[in-house]
Order: sequence, then structure tokens, then C-alpha cells
Amino acid sequence: MSQNQDRVGVVGSGSFGMAIANLLAHNSDVVLFSRRQEVVDEINATHRNKDTSLSPRIRATNNLQDVCANCQLIFPVIPSTAFRATMAAMSPWLTPQHIIIHGTKGFDLVHVNEADLQDHKVSITRRNVRTMSEVVLEETLVLRVGCLSGPNLASEILSGQPTATLVASRFKEVIQVGQKVLNSPQFHVFGSYDLIGAELAGALKNIIALASGMLEGLGMGRNMQGLLIARGLAEMVYFGKEMGAESKAFVGVAGIGDLVTTATSVNSRNHTFGRRLAKGETVEQIRAAMPELAEGVRTLKIANELARHYRLHVPIIQTLYRVVYEGLDMSRALKFLMSYPYDVDVDFL
Amino acid sequence: MSQNQDRVGVVGSGSFGMAIANLLAHNSDVVLFSRRQEVVDEINATHRNKDTSLSPRIRATNNLQDVCANCQLIFPVIPSTAFRATMAAMSPWLTPQHIIIHGTKGFDLVHVNEADLQDHKVSITRRNVRTMSEVVLEETLVLRVGCLSGPNLASEILSGQPTATLVASRFKEVIQVGQKVLNSPQFHVFGSYDLIGAELAGALKNIIALASGMLEGLGMGRNMQGLLIARGLAEMVYFGKEMGAESKAFVGVAGIGDLVTTATSVNSRNHTFGRRLAKGETVEQIRAAMPELAEGVRTLKIANELARHYRLHVPIIQTLYRVVYEGLDMSRALKFLMSYPYDVDVDFL
Repeated sequence: MSQNQDRVGVVGSGSFGMAIANLLAHNSDVVLFSRRQEVVDEINATHRNKDTSLSPRIRATNNLQDVCANCQLIFPVIPSTAFRATMAAMSPWLTPQHIIIHGTKGFDLVHVNEADLQDHKVSITRRNVRTMSEVVLEETLVLRVGCLSGPNLASEILSGQPTATLVASRFKEVIQVGQKVLNSPQFHVFGSYDLIGAELAGALKNIIALASGMLEGLGMGRNMQGLLIARGLAEMVYFGKEMGAESKAFVGVAGIGDLVTTATSVNSRNHTFGRRLAKGETVEQIRAAMPELAEGVRTLKIANELARHYRLHVPIIQTLYRVVYEGLDMSRALKFLMSYPYDVDVDFL
Repeated sequence: MSQNQDRVGVVGSGSFGMAIANLLAHNSDVVLFSRRQEVVDEINATHRNKDTSLSPRIRATNNLQDVCANCQLIFPVIPSTAFRATMAAMSPWLTPQHIIIHGTKGFDLVHVNEADLQDHKVSITRRNVRTMSEVVLEETLVLRVGCLSGPNLASEILSGQPTATLVASRFKEVIQVGQKVLNSPQFHVFGSYDLIGAELAGALKNIIALASGMLEGLGMGRNMQGLLIARGLAEMVYFGKEMGAESKAFVGVAGIGDLVTTATSVNSRNHTFGRRLAKGETVEQIRAAMPELAEGVRTLKIANELARHYRLHVPIIQTLYRVVYEGLDMSRALKFLMSYPYDVDVDFL
């Protein structure tokens, strides 16, 4: 197996996977895994995937063994619901020499049936929730894990605009290798040792983006957007504190940076879900119309359960849950939140 | 003189002054000062000022003595360049029984001629810079001062949308009286003892809004916006630490909340200034075309001088200064910032 980063793997050919692959191709050859043979064939024949132009240094494959055998460093960028199964499928070819830096913003659930959760038959605690790096550690022999988190809308990266990201890991060498392969004049890579903080910020911000879309759907302007982001950030920090993250993870590029980008982007799935709900569509109608589930909708359910478990006062998240899953009227929800007896503005530092 | 808050004063009939007056009129009679007799007459005759509808509980006057004699609690909401002169004009009628809560987001300069500053003939230090509450203390007998700061775009408040704000003061009674007169189902009022923090956040965020407009003018999207806000916030905190504010002032409603609102609002003067500059207009052309100077342009100069004084590394503010005041090419500025050797993401908590 290659002991360097001349060849880097990306697992997942969604828009963010392709964006990461193109960034990596500035510095390395890239092996890009896609489940779908037609995508693999199109990329290898034309260096394109639909409307997206890909670097000639990217070779596509639909063979996970090919990725694992040829790349010491692998970036999985797949939906949270597919993450565990994909790690399990890769595990026969993964060794302690591999490094995995994932770009997935969501949670994994264990020992619980998601359908039961839907029907309120069970409640969940921290024992049922895994971050993606925890899934890697459970499913593979890989020890050196990290995550990628930041203001990284794929469409803007693919259109050539600059931005920055954060590589977080407990291992200095993971941060360093992540910076080495991703850094370019267009893409600044910060480092952090607070892995759980970066993972929580990335997952929880999708809930706030959903709420932001809802506010926009209700006709609210920038004041409420700013207020939501400030108060939403506080709620994210409360979760972080309970789950072992440092507060500072939430005020940097992967915290506020990503939160502002996602919550103000009208193109994100989470924002769109919230906006359509506010315009009167039902959850079922929106689900049927959107090809991929907005991660925030699932994260909202998990966060609401965790808030109960930790006895957190996170009124935005709890009220949003009642709107999305229990049909609470949105104007009443807003009225409730505006009159919520907040004690102080900032109590989390 | 009235010893209660049945009648509250507002000094300044700009859009934010009118928005505050309307909010106060939910709970109190309001005396609104305007310099211009025609505005006073129009408001008293029609309860309107141009397109803005005002509560019948608002009485206008162009007599500062009228405001000071009839109101124990006064909200000055005027440009920073007019603040000291207005306080001096009010001072004959102001007593230690008065409470002043200002809504002005900028700095005052003393012992320095602003024209000399323009020509780089002098440099300034903290000794030359006053916040608005410091000006009140210098120019009047009033002791109990506070400020109002938050995601409070006047146009949205005037259109009836809900939002929140922060009243900051070293005096508990100032916070309490501010909350009492301003709180309504449409307007949530947080309190804080960190007056300097709230004033700095309010003033410095205008610089980031200017930069945000510039990014938009350059065709950048949400990623760069989120990155700017995250890194800009860090620079705001560096100033705050040197000038005696707590970090937490910058991550609450009056910090991140106001920053996100102002930096993403395409209607703000600061955003407009930055956008037009990026589109190729000169500073002089924009100044000539805009009726009121964007506060951020002046604050940028003062902040750049203070950064030199404190030896702060605030590359966004320093680079922006070179763009606005020294004609540095914007693409080169952006390239410089993207390759700036940032060590760590968050070092300010």
C-alpha cells in the first residue's frame, strides 16, 4: 500500500464529494468511489458528472477495495444514514495505517429502530448516538480519524470560489496530512484537536438552517435571521458542553462560519425544507418532492431526544421539533419563542 | 421632573430613532426630538414622517430642553459625528437623575483633527477614542448610562417584524428600566453589564458589513460570507480584549446577532458602500452619492489606528483599510487574506 499522499481516496460522488475530489486534485491523484457504475463510466470517459467538470487527476471506481488498497488517506463524504454500512463494507481492506477524514454532517443511531423513534415508542440517550468518527472507530481498524467542517457549500467550491475549512482530529498527523493535501490558494485549511466539537457543530447547524428557512417562509427578514443564529449558536454550545466539546469549536470557521453560510443559503436542502413547510406544505409532501432527505430533519429528532436526556433548555430546537413532528402552528411557535423568559444573553462561556 | 417612565425621550429622527420611538410608544408616551422643524410639524400634524407611520403617543419637538425637562429616560439615536455636540447641547438640562441609553454605533475622537487623520499627519491611540457612553459621562452630569445594541434593522422593526435587542449598562437599574420600557411581544430585551463590549461590537461590526458588501460586489457567495463573519468576529474580540470588554459580549445577540444581520443585509449603508467600491466606483463617488456616510468607513480608519496602537494582528481590518484608504487592488487583497498564515482557528476564548 502507498505510504504517502500521492493518491488520495474520496468515497461518495455527491456534490460535496466531487468538490473535495477537485480540491484534492490540486495536489494529488484522486480515486473517487461512486456506487453507480454509470457515474463511474461517465467520469472516467469524460471527466464530467452531469454538469460538474472534474479534474483529469480524478479516477472513478465503484470498487471500495480499489480505494482502500490504493489510498492511505480516505475522505468519506456520504449521507449519515449510509455511513455505517459503507464503513462496514470498507473494513476488510482498512488497516491501522489508514487515515480517515470524513465530511458527513449528521449522527448515527445504534440499538434503536428509527421507525420506533418516529412513533415515539422509544427514547434515546447518548448511548444510542454516534458521531461519524465514532462509527469509523467501531466498524474498522482505523485509529487515526478526523473530520472536515466549514463554510463549504459544494456548488460554490465547484464554481471556483475560494473558502476555508477546518480539519479536526485528536491526532496532529491527521491535521497535518489533511492540511497538506487540501491547502491551496483557493482553500485555506485550519486545524483543531476538538473533533467532537467540529462534528457536533457540523451536524447541529443543519437544524438552525431548517429554522432559518422557516423564518424566511414566514416572511421574516434579517433581524430575525441574526437573532436565530445568535440564539441557535447558544443552543448548539449547550449540546457541545454535555457531549464533551469545547465552546470554542462553535465560534470558529466550522461553527459560526458554517452556520452562517448554511443558514443564509437559500439553496441548501435544510433551508428549502423549512421554507416549504412555512409555505404550507406538509412534511410528507416535501419528503416526496425532495430527492435526498435534509440531514437537519433527522438531526432535529435526535437532538430533541438528547435534549430531554440531558435536561437541556434549548427552546428553539424543542419548539422546532414540535412544529416539524407534532404539527405545532408556526405562528404560535414563534410567539412562544419571542416571549420565552430568557434570563441572560450569553451564559455559555 | 417626572420620576417615572410614563414619558420617554428619543433624540434623533432617523429611521432607527423612529423605530425606537414606535417601540417605546407601546408602553409610554414619547417625546421625539428632531433638528428639523418641518419634520416636527409633519409628525405632530399627521403622525407620519415621510413613508413612516408613527404612534399617536409620539409628540415631536425641536427643543432639547423640552425633552430633558419632560423625560427622565432618554434614548439618543444620532450619528457618532453629531453625538458629542448634541450631548453638550443637552447638558444644561441634564441632571444625575437622568438615565441615558444610546443607540449609536460608532466612536468619537478627541484631541485630534479628523482631517489630519485623513492625511496621515497624526496617529491615534486609545486616549483619542471615546465610546458614546464615555462621551455622555464627559459632557453631562448623567451617571447612569447604557446602550442599545442588537439585530435591529430599522426598516424591519418599522414594518412590524419581531426581533430582540440588548440593553447594556454597568447599572442594574438602567438595564431594568430599559427592559421595562422596550419589552413587548414584538421586541425581546436582553440585559448585560458589559457596556464597553456591547458598544465595541456595535461599532466594529459595521466594518465587517462593509467587507461583506465588497465580497458580494466581487461575486462571492455564502461560503466567503460565512468565513468573513467567523474571522471578522475573531478580530472584533481582539479589540474587545484590549479595550476591556469580555469575549462573551461578541457571541450574543448584540455581537453575532447584529453582525450577521448587518453583514447580510444588502440594504445597509455599510454593505452598499462595500458593494459599490467592489463594482469599481471610487470612495469619493460613493461618498458624493450617499446622503449619510456609512459609519463603518469612519470606524475602519479608527480601528486601523487602534490596531497599530495595540499591535493587534487583525488582517481583515488592516487589509480593508488599505483597500478603502490606500487604493489596494481588491483581488490582490483577497489573495493576500486567503494565504494569510493563520495559526489557529479560535484563539480568543
